[in-house]
Amino acid sequence: MTPFTSLLSIDKLSARPAFVQLSDQLVNLIRTGTLSVGQRIPGTRQMAGLLAINRQTVVAGYDEAIAQGWLETRPGSGTFVAGHLPDVQPQLLAIDKRETGIQQNGPIDQDPSRQPGYTFVLRPYLARPILINSGRLHLDDGFPDIRLAPLAELGRAYRSYFRWGNPQQHFGYGDPKGHPLLREQLSSYLNETRGLHTTSDNVLITRGSIMGLHLVSQVLLQAGDVVITGETTWAGATMNFLNAGARVLTVPVDAYGMDVDALAAIAEKMLIRLVSVTPHHHYPTTVTLRSDRRIRLLQLAEQYGFAILEDDYDYDFHYLSRPILPLASADQQGMVVYIGSLTKSVAPAFRIGYVVAPTALIDELARLRRIIDRQGDPMLEFAIGQLFKTGDLKRHFRKALRIYHTRRDHFCKLLNTELANVIKFSKPDGGMAVWALFDPAIDMEKLGKRASQRGLDLANGLMHNPPGQLLNGTRLGFASSTEAELDQSVALLKKIL
Amino acid sequence: MTPFTSLLSIDKLSARPAFVQLSDQLVNLIRTGTLSVGQRIPGTRQMAGLLAINRQTVVAGYDEAIAQGWLETRPGSGTFVAGHLPDVQPQLLAIDKRETGIQQNGPIDQDPSRQPGYTFVLRPYLARPILINSGRLHLDDGFPDIRLAPLAELGRAYRSYFRWGNPQQHFGYGDPKGHPLLREQLSSYLNETRGLHTTSDNVLITRGSIMGLHLVSQVLLQAGDVVITGETTWAGATMNFLNAGARVLTVPVDAYGMDVDALAAIAEKMLIRLVSVTPHHHYPTTVTLRSDRRIRLLQLAEQYGFAILEDDYDYDFHYLSRPILPLASADQQGMVVYIGSLTKSVAPAFRIGYVVAPTALIDELARLRRIIDRQGDPMLEFAIGQLFKTGDLKRHFRKALRIYHTRRDHFCKLLNTELANVIKFSKPDGGMAVWALFDPAIDMEKLGKRASQRGLDLANGLMHNPPGQLLNGTRLGFASSTEAELDQSVALLKKIL
Repeated sequence: MTPFTSLLSIDKLSARPAFVQLSDQLVNLIRTGTLSVGQRIPGTRQMAGLLAINRQTVVAGYDEAIAQGWLETRPGSGTFVAGHLPDVQPQLLAIDKRETGIQQNGPIDQDPSRQPGYTFVLRPYLARPILINSGRLHLDDGFPDIRLAPLAELGRAYRSYFRWGNPQQHFGYGDPKGHPLLREQLSSYLNETRGLHTTSDNVLITRGSIMGLHLVSQVLLQAGDVVITGETTWAGATMNFLNAGARVLTVPVDAYGMDVDALAAIAEKMLIRLVSVTPHHHYPTTVTLRSDRRIRLLQLAEQYGFAILEDDYDYDFHYLSRPILPLASADQQGMVVYIGSLTKSVAPAFRIGYVVAPTALIDELARLRRIIDRQGDPMLEFAIGQLFKTGDLKRHFRKALRIYHTRRDHFCKLLNTELANVIKFSKPDGGMAVWALFDPAIDMEKLGKRASQRGLDLANGLMHNPPGQLLNGTRLGFASSTEAELDQSVALLKKIL
Repeated sequence: MTPFTSLLSIDKLSARPAFVQLSDQLVNLIRTGTLSVGQRIPGTRQMAGLLAINRQTVVAGYDEAIAQGWLETRPGSGTFVAGHLPDVQPQLLAIDKRETGIQQNGPIDQDPSRQPGYTFVLRPYLARPILINSGRLHLDDGFPDIRLAPLAELGRAYRSYFRWGNPQQHFGYGDPKGHPLLREQLSSYLNETRGLHTTSDNVLITRGSIMGLHLVSQVLLQAGDVVITGETTWAGATMNFLNAGARVLTVPVDAYGMDVDALAAIAEKMLIRLVSVTPHHHYPTTVTLRSDRRIRLLQLAEQYGFAILEDDYDYDFHYLSRPILPLASADQQGMVVYIGSLTKSVAPAFRIGYVVAPTALIDELARLRRIIDRQGDPMLEFAIGQLFKTGDLKRHFRKALRIYHTRRDHFCKLLNTELANVIKFSKPDGGMAVWALFDPAIDMEKLGKRASQRGLDLANGLMHNPPGQLLNGTRLGFASSTEAELDQSVALLKKIL
């Protein structure tokens, strides 16, 4: 007789119900051929005795295996491994995982909780570390100080949403383009502050600016299309262009932004589909695109028919008397797709971004968005819309701008007095980080590790290096630290340099 | 002299600031060649007089145009159209939009607020109407009754999140895989109730099940890969497979679910990458996949190395004594990617879905997700996690199950007594809708329109027709209406039939 007492073992302390454990184990014995088709298995009373468990548990376990088709009951004679099943044989995995493009380290992992039985192709350009807030001292990529965020006001707006009388309407399916209140408020805000010419029909609310980048890349780009970025640029954008199958070419970026002559030279030779720029404060170097280059860029777009993706994610934080209006404000022919974000102006968790574009593009972006995540978060979109309406958000922007301005000045003075012998930088006109070039003798990777060991998060900046170049530069975010914290961070950095 | 009084016109009532209007109009005159390079423009005092506006407004408008590079000041001699600009000529759109694949109706639209200056290719498979809750009487696709949702409890959980002391940690960047609390809670819940074998590392939190479908389609499918679905199936899944470039083939679905023999016949002839099923309650016909077919399907997956995408979005609502465990619970080789959702069990606005899979796939899905929307909503994910922890969510599921059970019985009785002469249906064992086949003499499109005119939202079901077949069937959702509302809806439907 089959030795059920050694083959089956029910763990009464497990979170998995005993009957499920029993059923699973029986199924496994059938699948692996230990129990064969048509074989009789012990009655429920006998099995309960063998396993020292409650008979009802055995009944439920058998029922489960019967429902799944592995066992069957023959009236008057007992329970059997089902006979009408397709032959059940132990099955070797049909696919040799070594041939699949899956990167393997060491011996092949056969644990199905880790490695699937089918194959898929990894995308090498996605293999970058994912940053998660650590709460330690940091000189970050240029993040906001979340302690300044209008959390009380946002909390109140959420509460008022939950209190409304019509749940079917407020918590049902909504418009993939975003909550109407936020689209309207944002359209007005962008028209007033940035010289855009939008109605809410030109605005698509996204989850952070990255979703705008993603949707635009997917809709505008076909495999093999040429995209131009700066030689230094944001990896999140490049990953999206590569993901859409584009060929990404780069042009130099100097103290006045992207080299538009170099762009024109490429445009003469090949069809460009998209040029990606952050003209207000170039990422990562923070320089502003000079006005003659702006005009030339727009003209080239019109002449050659490429789209300009203007990523203006930190527009709200500019420290000169008045920020320069975006390219989109001077765009007369609909060449610019304008992307922005509130994750930098409020807090990363409040994932609100937007795309501004002609309605024909907005409509198609929304149709694609529908099959990605259907729609945004109506509670969040309402709350942010409400804070635009009450003026709380604009007050917050002004307050944060003032504070960041002070922190920028404090930080740049600190860098000049404490680290002038090892770094070069220009005081940025806007944004939330300083672009610092370190002495070539300093190994940035080691520096980053040493800093981390001492409790300071500092990016090594290696990802900013164009292929074949060693800039030895990194971004030092000042906005998210108080002056006292900046003092500590710089002192620590000085000590380990 | 240039007739500035007729060329420029400032609307003082406009929401656009006067200085922006002035700057825009000047730029436009330069771009169109009305003002030429090097031309002197009136001084600010003179222009203010000409336009009858405040001189400060003119100063600000000129400053703006100067900042953008269109004007320049020559000390001591006034303001001029900038001379160092590239030639500014009126530019015809370089691209003939008729050749671009953009669908045009009537004359070509040149308004840049509607039609961009670059081209893009529309995806025909996305061109489906997007449903938004109307709040009227409805027999919907099978949506939950949001009036039952635990809104007070959710509101409280949101509040507690906002009250926490560490904003940097709670409102900063988080894990693209989801909030740890929710991943843990969901992993336990799925193990306990559905016989899965997960740790939280096997769980990716998504925004609704559609995002799971999207990510899995993008990661598992390459252009030209074969995907198998039922002949009737959910359009949201098919759109995603097509969007990934897959070739979608269908097999028949009968009263016992997908015809697995037909699937086997295809597998013998060609390489299948993915089989998409909703085995618990097939969408749209609500039938349950029979147990022998389940086993055969798993075997075929192992034999031929294809992945099974098990979409179990309405698992929680099953009216037999015990639901059948998902395919994923019997999967020993990691062939099943299991997708679920809370949007149907709580409310569509709370966009929580999940993917359960081996960690190697979960990791790659998360890397892709990072360039789509970076991460989910930590407030929402925490709130839902919290309601799992307190038991509120499970209590809600039980309550809703009981109520939907009663509504199903009431509705089926109604259909039998009121509409038996025009529709055929089987009482569904689970889910939130009845699959109703209407008399072939009834024009479903007209019926849908008539219903809508009378205040009843009723899908015409045309999207459920496989190519070349007229099922004349549609889904009649019962869960989101009270018994009294179901009475009204059926009475109205009877009247217009």
